[in-house]
Order: sequence, then structure tokens, then C-alpha cells
Amino acid sequence: MCPPGLDREEDPLQRICFMMRVRPDRAEEYRRRHADVWPEMRAALQAAGWHNYSLFLAGDGTVVGYLECEDFDAARSAMEAAEVNARWQTEMVPLFDLDGRRPDEAMVPLEEIFHLD
Amino acid sequence: MCPPGLDREEDPLQRICFMMRVRPDRAEEYRRRHADVWPEMRAALQAAGWHNYSLFLAGDGTVVGYLECEDFDAARSAMEAAEVNARWQTEMVPLFDLDGRRPDEAMVPLEEIFHLD
Repeated sequence: MCPPGLDREEDPLQRICFMMRVRPDRAEEYRRRHADVWPEMRAALQAAGWHNYSLFLAGDGTVVGYLECEDFDAARSAMEAAEVNARWQTEMVPLFDLDGRRPDEAMVPLEEIFHLD
Repeated sequence: MCPPGLDREEDPLQRICFMMRVRPDRAEEYRRRHADVWPEMRAALQAAGWHNYSLFLAGDGTVVGYLECEDFDAARSAMEAAEVNARWQTEMVPLFDLDGRRPDEAMVPLEEIFHLD
């Protein structure tokens, strides 16, 4: 499935942006945890095709993710199958209000409406 | 001035993310305008050092911008000095609720808390 947004037939790279909301009272813990992501979690992301991946945190707890990949559905499925990701997401759940869903299940890509190389 | 976030002494590239909110009733117009940004506006951004620049639009009118640059303060100042940008921003003002400020004056970088190449 193609991500929403610009037609990029000539450009096989997908640029993905998603937003999540961390509980404001847990934002500092979220920041701290992401300064020290497990090496095996980083390796799993890379193996799953997540490239140039950044997370940004706003003062109200909004988290913005940006990454580049060849196929976000495939990159996401590969992470969902990674055992280390299950462990990581389990530790992240209490930092979010998601009615029990894992944070990575709440990643909804935004529509890309402009791009300039 | 350094952008907020990760220490990147070894990495001269700054990754910038900012959020804005377009008026929901004008979001469709904002999308349409960004499908057809003036060539001279695109050229001015490139000349000002805005690279790999994308805008993403959420259903509630939230706009997320992502770009890479060597120095965001310098890249931003260069755009502020560009005549074409003044014309562009003037046309964007009615799409936002910003008490008369230009949309580009409301760009506040978020803190980058994680990065994976």
C-alpha cells in the first residue's frame, strides 16, 4: 500500500511522518528512555528498513516521528515481528493513554503535501 | 544557536521539525496551494539551505514540517530576507489563526530526542 500524499512514482523512497501523544507527566521519562535506546532495538529498526528516523517531542507531550523507508507497511510489519520491539513497546505502554494498545499500533501516517529535495 | 535536542557535535546536519495549525476550514486550500508551490519559492528555499523539506497535514489542520539544514537560524533568516517569501507568506496568513503574524514566524522547532541513521 502506498502512503498517503504526493505521487512519487519516480521516487521509491517513502517519507513517513506520524504523531503520538505521550502523557505529559511521563514526557520526561519518554525523553530519557529515548536518549538510551537499547542497541538491539536500534539494530532491529535498521534491519527492518527504518532509515533517517527521528523522534521529536513538543512541550505538550506531542511526539512527532519522521523516517524514510522503501515500504512503510513492510518496515512496520518487520518491527511488529521483532521480539525486542515487543519488549520495548511493553515498557512504553504506561507512558501513553492508548486504552491498552501498543504505541506503535497508534502510528497513523500523516499526508505529505509538499516536498523539496 | 544550536537547535534543541540531541548533541550532534560529530554531525553538522541539523534535523528540524516544527508544527503549525492551519484553520481546519482552510486545510483543503492549504493542501492545494502546496501541490503547486511557485518555482521561485522552491528556488529560494533551496538557495537558503532548506534541504529534504517536507510538509505533512493531519486531519485536524495540524501541519508538521521537517527539513535538514546546516544552520536553521541562518536558513530561516535567509528566507525571511527573500522577497518571494514575503509574497508567499502574505498569501498564507488568512489560512492560519496567528493574530497577524506570518506563518513562518510561528515555526518553533521541537526537541529531537532520538535519531537513527
